[in-house]
Amino acid sequence: MYNAKAYSAASATSPLASTTIPRRDTAEHDVEIEILFCGICHSDLHTVRDEWHSIMPTVYPCVPGHEIVGRVTKVGPAVTKFKQGDLAGVGCLVDSDHTCPNCQDGLEQLCPNQTLTFNSPDKHGTGPVTYGGYSDSIVVDERFVLRVPANLNLAGVAPLLCAGITTYSPIRRWGDLTGKKVGVVGLGGLGHMGVKFARAFGARVVVFTTSENKKEDALRLGADEVIISRNADEMQQHAGSFDFILDTIAADHDINAYINMLGRDGNITLVGAPEKPLAVSAFALLFGRRSLSGSIIGGIAETQEMLDFCGDHNITADVEVIPIQKVNEAYERLVKSDVKYRFSIDMSSLKSA
Amino acid sequence: MYNAKAYSAASATSPLASTTIPRRDTAEHDVEIEILFCGICHSDLHTVRDEWHSIMPTVYPCVPGHEIVGRVTKVGPAVTKFKQGDLAGVGCLVDSDHTCPNCQDGLEQLCPNQTLTFNSPDKHGTGPVTYGGYSDSIVVDERFVLRVPANLNLAGVAPLLCAGITTYSPIRRWGDLTGKKVGVVGLGGLGHMGVKFARAFGARVVVFTTSENKKEDALRLGADEVIISRNADEMQQHAGSFDFILDTIAADHDINAYINMLGRDGNITLVGAPEKPLAVSAFALLFGRRSLSGSIIGGIAETQEMLDFCGDHNITADVEVIPIQKVNEAYERLVKSDVKYRFSIDMSSLKSA
Repeated sequence: MYNAKAYSAASATSPLASTTIPRRDTAEHDVEIEILFCGICHSDLHTVRDEWHSIMPTVYPCVPGHEIVGRVTKVGPAVTKFKQGDLAGVGCLVDSDHTCPNCQDGLEQLCPNQTLTFNSPDKHGTGPVTYGGYSDSIVVDERFVLRVPANLNLAGVAPLLCAGITTYSPIRRWGDLTGKKVGVVGLGGLGHMGVKFARAFGARVVVFTTSENKKEDALRLGADEVIISRNADEMQQHAGSFDFILDTIAADHDINAYINMLGRDGNITLVGAPEKPLAVSAFALLFGRRSLSGSIIGGIAETQEMLDFCGDHNITADVEVIPIQKVNEAYERLVKSDVKYRFSIDMSSLKSA
Repeated sequence: MYNAKAYSAASATSPLASTTIPRRDTAEHDVEIEILFCGICHSDLHTVRDEWHSIMPTVYPCVPGHEIVGRVTKVGPAVTKFKQGDLAGVGCLVDSDHTCPNCQDGLEQLCPNQTLTFNSPDKHGTGPVTYGGYSDSIVVDERFVLRVPANLNLAGVAPLLCAGITTYSPIRRWGDLTGKKVGVVGLGGLGHMGVKFARAFGARVVVFTTSENKKEDALRLGADEVIISRNADEMQQHAGSFDFILDTIAADHDINAYINMLGRDGNITLVGAPEKPLAVSAFALLFGRRSLSGSIIGGIAETQEMLDFCGDHNITADVEVIPIQKVNEAYERLVKSDVKYRFSIDMSSLKSA
């Protein structure tokens, strides 16, 4: 074991602060990574503040972060995919059981025995739970380490590991989007990636937003059109016209307004998870044979495919780079959706922490 | 025009009673049918009692009935599909606009300008609205008249025209069900047809019911297994194991309990339409990439396919045959789900009405 620098929260009400944490020595299949950038995902904040207590109580100290990009510093003797000096990424998962039907189908994100990058019981016993990417280094089994295309801006790559795959997976799975009318509900960390991917797959992209002032930015990001969802007339004009809608809103919202936007056999997929159940009108689903789905991140193979796709299409997240010392302030801004569109922590700042 | 005998309701609170109604003369493309049996659908009752006022107010007098089977008595000069003496069926629709994208794809059930068999504005002006199958005869455009296999019991054929196609369509559309685990929620008019079709398509069929006393009957109808949905342990044992679930419940119910029964990429399709919005947990959809859909009857071509399939597989509804004079009593029993599994009115009883 060795000590790594990190930022951790000591309780649900404590700010994140500088600390040291243990990391395991590089075992046979392990890759040790110097973390260069780590994105800030809303899940970090939920976990740090123990807001998902009923599903997954937070164990403190908590080191969040699962949008990790860095450089390989050491590899175990059995590692074949990486060598020292390679770029590498780590997302929401660092292990799974490898034997369940989901793992066998490359869908580790649905493995019932998965190990999350932070706040999951640590099988290696290095700590009580896993510690995430708000740190200067991490050690991960090579099967959960992704290759990162060399042509991309690394600060903007970090968020691809969660926000990227979360939106890429359902868009990719929907089928051929060429010329299809695709809606993206919400223009935040997830939504702005949804716009980029839907556009890259050839869709006609329409953004639904409550903020008039996001209009220009949505168009810049690749949207063909923007609908102000508070405007009933504007909504009515587009009723029944969408093939697919990606709903990225994690707050309570009127889902039927969007179901009614779908055409025949249209699908709306949730990637945000509102805490309160959604009030779904059966009539809205029946008339038009519409469907409402959910999707959660993606498997390791698909995450690699997404990163390669981003390399080929020069896609990264739009980020605001911050030093780790500003993380608590960034959380406050995140709550107010005051970021375009993801914070990416420059981990070199941890050297002076 | 000619007069037909019928049973109609004069107001939302009136019982159905004997009357005469106008029917149009057989025009070029029309088929005149002597009605032999008409099934009683819950929609009949909702419409008669104006319970769908906000969506589709009832115009009185109201003659319900859209599960019609009978014999052709006359055909217009341009009719090619039918001749006098043929068996014929009519379902929920008697016309559509024939030009919209849905009609062009044979999905008349989704046409925005469809004419329902009863309580729809009557384009022919015979009455203010269309009059349904609680009558001794009906005149319908041949494009909305179905061929009925000769080998089936006609009283049991009538409900196929609504309950049959409503359940056949989503089951058929799901894909190859051979060996798949298929759930049917609720064992009523729709549910019992769902069991028969899922079975005929080679699925392993599991019925969810609240009534212990429906167990034996479910097995007789073709279910491989029955789950008493009030039993949490029994439910838990089957969590995550279903490929497809057909939900036939029109009353408010806990949809998440059934979403959680679905395995990866599993789908639950609603064919009942609870008035109150369903409280859907986003988490239940996300974990497992599950989906919730709606489906409504079927197009004319698919309805014909369903009837032919029933002929080939000797499938009819289980019915309790009643004379029209017992229709008000049957409505009371329907409200209490006291019928196995559909009432079919023997229209010869109307002769003495």
